[in-house]
Amino acid sequence: MSETHKHKIDTCFTPYLYPVYKEEDTIVVIIDVFRATSAICVAFHYGAERIIPVATVEEAMEYKKQGFLAGAERDAIKLDGFDFGNSPYDYMGDHVNGKTIALTTTNGTQAIEAARDAYKVVVGSFLNIDILCDWLIKQERNVLLLCSGWKNKFNMEDALFAGAVSEKISQLSDAFKMGDGCLALMYLYGQAQHEPVKFLVHASHKERMAKLGLKKDIKFCLTPNSCPVIPVLQGKYLVKL
Amino acid sequence: MSETHKHKIDTCFTPYLYPVYKEEDTIVVIIDVFRATSAICVAFHYGAERIIPVATVEEAMEYKKQGFLAGAERDAIKLDGFDFGNSPYDYMGDHVNGKTIALTTTNGTQAIEAARDAYKVVVGSFLNIDILCDWLIKQERNVLLLCSGWKNKFNMEDALFAGAVSEKISQLSDAFKMGDGCLALMYLYGQAQHEPVKFLVHASHKERMAKLGLKKDIKFCLTPNSCPVIPVLQGKYLVKL
Repeated sequence: MSETHKHKIDTCFTPYLYPVYKEEDTIVVIIDVFRATSAICVAFHYGAERIIPVATVEEAMEYKKQGFLAGAERDAIKLDGFDFGNSPYDYMGDHVNGKTIALTTTNGTQAIEAARDAYKVVVGSFLNIDILCDWLIKQERNVLLLCSGWKNKFNMEDALFAGAVSEKISQLSDAFKMGDGCLALMYLYGQAQHEPVKFLVHASHKERMAKLGLKKDIKFCLTPNSCPVIPVLQGKYLVKL
Repeated sequence: MSETHKHKIDTCFTPYLYPVYKEEDTIVVIIDVFRATSAICVAFHYGAERIIPVATVEEAMEYKKQGFLAGAERDAIKLDGFDFGNSPYDYMGDHVNGKTIALTTTNGTQAIEAARDAYKVVVGSFLNIDILCDWLIKQERNVLLLCSGWKNKFNMEDALFAGAVSEKISQLSDAFKMGDGCLALMYLYGQAQHEPVKFLVHASHKERMAKLGLKKDIKFCLTPNSCPVIPVLQGKYLVKL
């Protein structure tokens, strides 16, 4: 590491790989652009007090029975009996203001679960990218961008966002030594940034969502800085920093 | 999958992730550009009869004691007491002609070990890229590009080669549906192809090798089609197809 590189930043492409990348004293950024981490940013922007990320549908239902609002999504579809799926639009409005919401999703909440013991866990999406990058730089610590992927496989949209964060941080600070994952994704983002929707046209989850009529969600999730909040894990709760 | 896409091709970024990508009836291409799979291609090009890839130094030493030639590398350095490291230059010449060679390396032979039960396991590097891609297309089966990475982390040079294969196959055939890994790496390769050495300048293993004075190896390993052979796993041996 050169003199100017005080800290490391790297990208882990799926939660399955997290044990390989796990290190002490590292801030982990959870990424699930389509759509869990986008939805979480929206909920806090609209005043949600706490989100309880849980791995299983059963746990989410347990909270629902206790009177909490609860969201549950599997394979891009909202599950019956819950208040929300993982569409950002589900979380826009007064109905989330001041509320605690339990949430389980196919990929995003699994990534939070995997990284639960990290030094700090925060939530990233295009919706909070600038405020997140500024905050990461100020922390002066190692950073790991943890992509949720799709069922533990690499996916394009999370990689694109990790590339956008890598690019932004490298422009604003020379304190970070980039791992190969970040380097590769910066190049990817360089090609995609002007037309991200078009860029994702052949990506697997984009195709999956388009089939389900979720194009509006896709466009919204790729729009930067509409929700300038930083969700952070405190014990079992996500709260607004 | 559309009518024209009869088969799938995807990339698995490290052996650690292989269980997530593993599928029946899939041809697995082992990739360790710097330098195991490059060295293996060279050895067969120079007439080696068989290579025995083994996971541990102890196993390689056992073969050595039995009178076989044996190569062993850890952390880019040739181990004492062995005939070869993993430099391609070690395997050039008459001394490998007709010989059986045991080989263990930090990453490449671990990837072979992980994929041992696949339908078919072949070895890829820039040195055999064209003959390999032509052969893969003719097999009319699903393909998984398995990058060895660096100690189970993503690395740039293996990703670059996987991108080159994806690009080449997509140009020659419309029979393959690309997974997100291949799609992303095709973009990466698109940026790197004209100046791969320069492109890899900040990549972690390139830096590691440059420090060890291995620039000549780097350049050789990035030169396409100097060894038009396809090493394939048969039982415990790699042989020339």
